[in-house]
Amino acid sequence: MLLMVKWPGSGMSDRDWLDDIRWTADGLVPAIAQDATDGRILMMAWMNREALQLTAQTGTAVYWSRSRGKLWHKGEESGHQQRISEIRLDCDNDVIVLQVEQIGGIACHTGRRSCFYQRLENDRWVAVEPVLKDPGAIYGK
Amino acid sequence: MLLMVKWPGSGMSDRDWLDDIRWTADGLVPAIAQDATDGRILMMAWMNREALQLTAQTGTAVYWSRSRGKLWHKGEESGHQQRISEIRLDCDNDVIVLQVEQIGGIACHTGRRSCFYQRLENDRWVAVEPVLKDPGAIYGK
Repeated sequence: MLLMVKWPGSGMSDRDWLDDIRWTADGLVPAIAQDATDGRILMMAWMNREALQLTAQTGTAVYWSRSRGKLWHKGEESGHQQRISEIRLDCDNDVIVLQVEQIGGIACHTGRRSCFYQRLENDRWVAVEPVLKDPGAIYGK
Repeated sequence: MLLMVKWPGSGMSDRDWLDDIRWTADGLVPAIAQDATDGRILMMAWMNREALQLTAQTGTAVYWSRSRGKLWHKGEESGHQQRISEIRLDCDNDVIVLQVEQIGGIACHTGRRSCFYQRLENDRWVAVEPVLKDPGAIYGK
């Protein structure tokens, strides 16, 4: 009989890194995608365990679409994939930051570079960034 | 009788900008704080309506502490306030990004600059950033 001794917290532990995440009651974690080239925040979406595992394994962002209730391989329709250069976790183990290369330079479904294109100005939200490509052309509708 | 005519979506509307937010069922919205000087993502926390309103009114970040169940004036204990230079909203109206000046250069309760100090390396989370100040000294415990 081979006795496997494991030291919790040490490099000898076989603890899965995914178990370190503090998932929501729905089994999700928010993931912020940041452009690795200039630090621009592109989007925030949600991942379940499988999405985060696939993201790490494939080096390409996979999210969980809450509206569609299924895995969302970012860029599967638009071609605007995100190649991952780094995955970070915060001090509470409940938020992820991804450093990404944004293929096509467009992260947002509106055809803008970033989803964060609305700026608060005098108590109103104002769209302050250009649409780089018509969504109809992106999604072929 | 004075008839007040309002055009929805026009500048004449008296719609509250806070009503544009798609709050969670718990009445919260995630808010990402990004250092305005170099784009470093410092933290993500949650805001309720009052927190976001106070943040906009005072120009200093106020969050909602889910663990303590009350408003959290960032820096109220540590002195590490965040002065707001810009507030943005994403395409789905359910995530906020704040551009901030981080007073003291420390956003994290561990004494690090950013909460995102754990990097995934070979299937393990590794702390890759220095503690700039001992938390005991920050919080006077």
